[in-house]
Amino acid sequence: MCEYGLRAIGHVESELSERSAAPRQPDEGAPEAWVVLDERCAPALAGLEPDTDVLLFTWLDRADRETLAVHPRGDQERPLTGVFATRAPDRPNPIGLHEVHVLEVVGTRVHVRNLEALDGTPVLDIKPVLTGSR
Amino acid sequence: MCEYGLRAIGHVESELSERSAAPRQPDEGAPEAWVVLDERCAPALAGLEPDTDVLLFTWLDRADRETLAVHPRGDQERPLTGVFATRAPDRPNPIGLHEVHVLEVVGTRVHVRNLEALDGTPVLDIKPVLTGSR
Repeated sequence: MCEYGLRAIGHVESELSERSAAPRQPDEGAPEAWVVLDERCAPALAGLEPDTDVLLFTWLDRADRETLAVHPRGDQERPLTGVFATRAPDRPNPIGLHEVHVLEVVGTRVHVRNLEALDGTPVLDIKPVLTGSR
Repeated sequence: MCEYGLRAIGHVESELSERSAAPRQPDEGAPEAWVVLDERCAPALAGLEPDTDVLLFTWLDRADRETLAVHPRGDQERPLTGVFATRAPDRPNPIGLHEVHVLEVVGTRVHVRNLEALDGTPVLDIKPVLTGSR
């Protein structure tokens, strides 16, 4: 099996610290948070504007990578479902995808709204929400 | 810098074989393709239905990971822009994100429409497009 090395480019600063307390989806009470990037990534932020929506990619470092099927939302009454048909964090490559709203960019710190990732979660990438122009 | 090991769970089978010929966005003529998953991932596909849209995550193995800023769409007249404000494949962690339409699931092969990834591109993950129910 081929392996590829991801490099954390920063981390999340958030009041959320426990997986059991984290909302499952951002519309379920996710707080504001800071995405703190390594200073060497500064050139990669040029053009990232406040008041836009972006896709934040994280590494869900507390996930179980051996899990292939789950009861959606932990509800035992729902049938066992393959992780590729759910957003469960436990999966072979636990990449978190979060659509967040950029409030401000201060140096290499990005203040965002609606992030359900835990404090300390490694950050992998930021991409604009696709508009067709870029 | 922390590193995390991604495991390829499959690959793309496509008629697209050269980066220079690949469409930049799926609405620019991306073809049908097959996502071929390892057989051990079969349980993770349970519940993935034809005629749904999913997010396919790939590893853009031909990308340059040292690039931090680009001229969008390779147009030298557009100002140099940080990769986090573009969808350029060259970036520190070249994770490809593709919204594709599932045509059929045959064993661990998934036939999809609108995939701009190149033949042989490693596959990392599949997630449903968020509907709020999962």
